[in-house]
Formats: sequence, structure tokens, C-alpha cells
Amino acid sequence: MITLSSDFGTPYPAAMKGVIVQRTDARLVDVAHEFPRQDVRTASFWLREVLPYFPPATHLVVIDPGVGTDRDALVVRAGEHTLVGPDNGVLLPAARRLAGDTDRLETHVIDEDGLGPVEPTTPTRSGSDTRGPHSPRSRSNTFHGRDVFAPAAAAVHDAGVTSLESLAWLEPTTPAVDLELPSPTLEDERAVGEVLVVDDFGNVITNVPGSILDDLKRVRANDEPVPVGETFAAVPAGERLATVGSHGYVELDVNQGRGDEASGLEPGDRVVLEPVRNDDS
Amino acid sequence: MITLSSDFGTPYPAAMKGVIVQRTDARLVDVAHEFPRQDVRTASFWLREVLPYFPPATHLVVIDPGVGTDRDALVVRAGEHTLVGPDNGVLLPAARRLAGDTDRLETHVIDEDGLGPVEPTTPTRSGSDTRGPHSPRSRSNTFHGRDVFAPAAAAVHDAGVTSLESLAWLEPTTPAVDLELPSPTLEDERAVGEVLVVDDFGNVITNVPGSILDDLKRVRANDEPVPVGETFAAVPAGERLATVGSHGYVELDVNQGRGDEASGLEPGDRVVLEPVRNDDS
Amino acid sequence: MITLSSDFGTPYPAAMKGVIVQRTDARLVDVAHEFPRQDVRTASFWLREVLPYFPPATHLVVIDPGVGTDRDALVVRAGEHTLVGPDNGVLLPAARRLAGDTDRLETHVIDEDGLGPVEPTTPTRSGSDTRGPHSPRSRSNTFHGRDVFAPAAAAVHDAGVTSLESLAWLEPTTPAVDLELPSPTLEDERAVGEVLVVDDFGNVITNVPGSILDDLKRVRANDEPVPVGETFAAVPAGERLATVGSHGYVELDVNQGRGDEASGLEPGDRVVLEPVRNDDS
Repeated sequence: MITLSSDFGTPYPAAMKGVIVQRTDARLVDVAHEFPRQDVRTASFWLREVLPYFPPATHLVVIDPGVGTDRDALVVRAGEHTLVGPDNGVLLPAARRLAGDTDRLETHVIDEDGLGPVEPTTPTRSGSDTRGPHSPRSRSNTFHGRDVFAPAAAAVHDAGVTSLESLAWLEPTTPAVDLELPSPTLEDERAVGEVLVVDDFGNVITNVPGSILDDLKRVRANDEPVPVGETFAAVPAGERLATVGSHGYVELDVNQGRGDEASGLEPGDRVVLEPVRNDDS
Repeated sequence: MITLSSDFGTPYPAAMKGVIVQRTDARLVDVAHEFPRQDVRTASFWLREVLPYFPPATHLVVIDPGVGTDRDALVVRAGEHTLVGPDNGVLLPAARRLAGDTDRLETHVIDEDGLGPVEPTTPTRSGSDTRGPHSPRSRSNTFHGRDVFAPAAAAVHDAGVTSLESLAWLEPTTPAVDLELPSPTLEDERAVGEVLVVDDFGNVITNVPGSILDDLKRVRANDEPVPVGETFAAVPAGERLATVGSHGYVELDVNQGRGDEASGLEPGDRVVLEPVRNDDS
Repeated sequence: MITLSSDFGTPYPAAMKGVIVQRTDARLVDVAHEFPRQDVRTASFWLREVLPYFPPATHLVVIDPGVGTDRDALVVRAGEHTLVGPDNGVLLPAARRLAGDTDRLETHVIDEDGLGPVEPTTPTRSGSDTRGPHSPRSRSNTFHGRDVFAPAAAAVHDAGVTSLESLAWLEPTTPAVDLELPSPTLEDERAVGEVLVVDDFGNVITNVPGSILDDLKRVRANDEPVPVGETFAAVPAGERLATVGSHGYVELDVNQGRGDEASGLEPGDRVVLEPVRNDDS
């Protein structure tokens, strides 16, 4: 199985799929192609939270603001999973989660020349409109998803996670760029954390573990008291609440509304959470 | 085959897919993940109109504004099809259409504890960033698509529509919430109906059967005369028409434009249709 | 394999998929369903550039502003590929590229009555809400993607590209509408071309072959000097550049920004490109 993740929108993912199905019978599953453009951190969060629900697979990830520069193209083995994508950190939070232990992480760099070119259908004779200006033997500088990562993912899938050493165009390396999503500071009952992402519903997902809300009826979020609820419907439609989201973190949400608009919070913003006791106002 | 429908946008559907492919080899087909948020009625219309084109399948449907409340999680057998989703009515218009006869409908409630937990890849040892705060043995209160409906759909698919009784975590029940899309009133040649949905093109789809337009050249829609056309191109680009849409209902459309903007109509609005005879103005 | 392309957005593509999976086990791959509405030219460009990356397949293409008119429904054999869609030109740029030679193009018209009707699940008895107003034996006038092109694509796939003559509802024909994307004028070192499309990133893709940028450091684009870069990162974030895009054409882009907004260019606009020599200002 090969999963596909990108910030491409449409229709660029289809070219990657064509390249893959040209090379392998692997099952394809789209994770998302609407990740915020060139936002490595947001994509790394979602991949870390979503990919562990998959069985062992090859995960193709193309969020690649440095396409065409000398940043490396990587294959990361993470336990029984493999990730393929650019060396900008986007693979690493998911890889660590999938591996469970950094001992089970192995990183390889792709030798792009060794991997060989991606060739579209090659016309036999030239004629009006039958041949584009694209040389089939060259690699584009702007679409490595199609020309490097997709063929690499197909080959990695067919080799299998335990036989990456059979691929001559892979060399062991160390990632140049690390990315670790921030951890909160927990002191006594006060948590100082950060907004990791805002989801499509407007839910504000922080990095503070949900256990901080245990047994609380209200919490002070950046000095504003907010009810704690086990689920959205704990408060009337349109009202704010703090809840434990599906990833286990504290979320600042609105029942049937947008938590980001109600709180004014954006990814990267600081969030201070403090318990409200019965005698607090 | 398992079809997937939700209002999740992206990337939450990928977590449901991971859970399913972890459990079964069933073919997956997306129906849509962009249904209007928490709009049970609109989704129920589309499912009623689209699912009957599929061969017998398990249909996973997660439009679930009451997630985490005590609303039941249902499995509805409808003839040779099975639907899995929340007890808020969203499954029923499609289920009745797929069954063809209410005698062929059977509803079961899911015992969530009996179904068991959904476990992401479990790290062997804890370490920085290798383990999230999410306890793998707990069920989230905000994402039953991943934690209840997806594993249930996988199991229902593998059991088969005729062997649902083999699933110990299903109990016969009666849906708490019914939903029936409104029927129009037809008196003489006058139809009083309602806008069911507006599609992505802006076409205004009513609940009035298309046969009311038979042999008419013009119809009065909420007192405005509109040409009747067999297809969009019956009128010049940008002009309004009434036509019989692909679901068999009267639609108020604009050729290469948006009928909703031209008519000011929204889902739920009343629509009165009256024939315009030759001698009418 | 059957690929699917349309301007339908959601959820209409699902009805096409239901019709197809009802008829064939073919693998389905979405190319895109978000092509600009009724924009035959833009879709024809993307199909020409993307489909050649696929192995031999049946390509279902429904960008169809003339649905329900007397425009023909076509099956075009292009070498080892087959395309199915309306006779409005949308298939032809891709077909020529896939065939490589116009000798390898063969066009057939679909006899819609011979093809037969598409039937949704037919209820055995009528009852409240169990049966829609749609007669299963009629063809809609507004959704030939579901009622004509999808069943034709399923049958074409199952017959195989070399046995189209076995399908009694196909007759040889000549397309009524041709479409050829415009070619640039190249004189000395000056190219007069056109914007073909703007992609989702805002990159302005012209029809001028990238080789015109060989050895240039700057190019004058509609009289404005712009740096030439091998990749986006050749200029600082937010700055304009001219580069050779992944299809081999000159693109006018902005690193981590939108080239269309920076240049004010839209599809169809004229683009004059002239080299800037060292002694030019």
C-alpha cells in the first residue's frame, strides 16, 4: 500500500498516481492533497496523527517548498513503515511515532540520477501537438513529486521495507533538517503550550495533553474561563468549550461553530491553561 | 465494497480509511467528504439519490453533529445494502430507497464497548515525540468516524449483509430519529413544494416531480414566469430555466450560471409552480 | 484501469463511480473533479499533460457544457489508450499526445439508445419515499456523465482497446469540434505566445517552450524584466521569476507566492518574451 500526501490541490496529484500505477500494482490511498501550501509544520502534525492508523505502508509525502534546491530527497524507514519525501523535517514527527523508538529509524538519501528518469508516453513521430516541449529524459526542477518521489515510492514499495538495501540508488544518511513539534511546559496545574494546528472545522488543537482537564468543570484559557466538556454537545450550539480532541490534546472549540474565530487563536500562538476551581470567578 | 461519506473535508477521512484498511481488504470508494457541515438533511438527500447507483455495498456515513452524546450508532440493513452511521436520520432516506420496501429494513444498535477499541500503531517504548497523549484503549468523544463507525463498517463488510446476527455487538433496535424529506402538494396543475438542496453548480433542486413540466413551454415559479427547457442549452447562457434534473425533480437553473443566485432560493424555501398557458402573460 | 476527470466537484462523481463499479472490476483513479466549470480548453491542457504519465487506460472525461444538446458522445482510440467524452474538443489534445501520431487516432460516436439505460436500484414495491420520480428507463438530459459516459467507459474498458468494433453501439465518425491549443510564434529570439492556464499555486503557464530561457539570466516578459531561475528558490520568497515548468513550458511564477497576481496575467492573455542581454537595462 502507498499513501499519498501533498499540498498540491488538483490536478498535480494525478500525475504522481500515473507514475506510480505505471510501475507497481500497489494499492493507493490518498491521505490529503489540501495541506496548507508549503506549511511543513502543519503537515507534519497531521501525518504524525493519521499515519499510525494505517497498516504497514509506504507513505509518499510531498510538501516541498525547497523543490529544485539542493535539499535531499529521503527514504525513511520507521519500523514496518517507510516514508518518502523531502529533507525538510516533514517526515520526522510521523516517522518517530511510527517507529516508536528512534532505534528503529533509518534514513537514506535518494541518488536522483541513479533512480533514473520518469518518461511520459513517448510519441513515435513528431507532429502538430503530438509532442510537448518536455524532454522525457530530463527531470523537472519544480515537480519532484512526479519525477523523483513518486517513482522512488513505487520502487520502495516493491522492494519492501526490509530490503531497502537492494535499491542501489539509496545511501544511508542523516537528515539535515529535524523538526520536532513543540512540547508544553507543565508546572503544578498550569500548562503553557502552543496551538499546533486549526482543523477544517475551526477546532484549535493545542499541544497540551488532555489529562490536564481531568475532573475540571472550567479552565482558564489565556485568562478567559471556558467550560470543559466531554464533547461538543456539552455546551449549547455556538458556545465555546475546552475538550479533549481525538488526538488526545486539549482543543479550544465551539459547538457547531469555529473555535478559531471565537478565540482569535492561530497555529503557533501561545496558550496558557489554568484550572478554575469552584471558588474562582 | 465500502463507500465513505462525511462532512469532514480533509484530512480526517484518511484516519477512517487507515482504520478500515487495517481490518479488511474491501474496496473503498469515496462518495463525498464535503457535505455541508453537520447538515443531516442535505446529506440524506444526496445519499438517497447516489447510493442506488452502487452495487450492494456497506455505506459508511458520518454526518454527526451529536458525536459524543448518547445518540446511538446504527447499522441499517436495507435489502442487499448496509448503512453504518449515527442515529440522527441521515441514513433513512437512502435506506428506504435501497430497500425498496420498509419490510426489507432492519436496524441494529452498535454496542460500542463490545465493538472494542481502535488502536493506532503502539510504540514499544516511550520517548520524545514517539508517543502521543492519546490512550490507545480509549475512544475519543469527538471522532466516532474513526473510533466507532469505521471499525464497525469494516466488520459489517466482512460479516456480509446476510450475517449481521453473527456480530455480537449488534442488537436489534428502532431508530430514535426518523427523517423523511418533504413531499410536495400537487393540486390540479399547481405544485407547492420545497427546495431540497442547491448543488455545487448552483442548481436549485426541488422536491416537485419533473412530470409537472410535461408539455409546458413556461412555468410560473413563485410568480415569476420561467422558460421550460429539456436541457440547459434550451436557453441562452446566463438565462434562467426550469428543467427536469438528473434525479427526476424540477430544478430552477441558469444555463452556465447559478440558479440559486438568479432565484434567491435556498434549501428549505417554499416553491410554488404553476403552468403558464399560451394566453398567460 | 479507468481514470475519471470532470468539473463536477462533489458529489456527482460518486454516481459515475457507482455506475462503473456496478459494471466492471476495473481499477478507478481520479484525475480531477475540480476542473474549472465548463472550461473545455483548460481541461484539455491538463489532460494532455497528465494522461501520458498513465499506463494504457480508459479515460472518462466529462467537461460538457453542451450536455443534452445534439453534440455527439465520443469514444476516441489513441494508440493504446481510449478516451470517452463529449464531442467538444476536450479529448483531442490529450488524444493526439497519447497517440503520438494522428494515424493512431480513431473516433467513434456512441449510439445512446443502443448503449441502453442506466438503472438505479429498482424498488420492488412503491411506498413512501422508497421510489423517486426518476424513471429508471429514461436518460437524464443534464447528467450524461452518469447516464452515457460512465456506462460507455465501463463497456469500453471491458471490451479492450483493440476490440472496440465488438461494441455494436459504436460507429466510426469524425469529431465535429476540433481543439488545438495555440502554438507560439518564435522569431529570432522573441517569442509571442499565450497563457494556457494558471495552476492552483498561481503559476502562469505559457505555451512557449522552455528552451527559450537557455543561458539567460533575465527575460523581458511583456516588457518587464524578470529573473530567470532554474527553480523557485532561485529568487527570494515573494519575488517573481521565469522558469521552465514541469511540462516544459515557460512559467511566470513567484517563489512561495502567486505569479498570476504579480503579473496580472490570465489564461488566453498574450505573452511576449524577449531575452535581456548583459548590456540591457
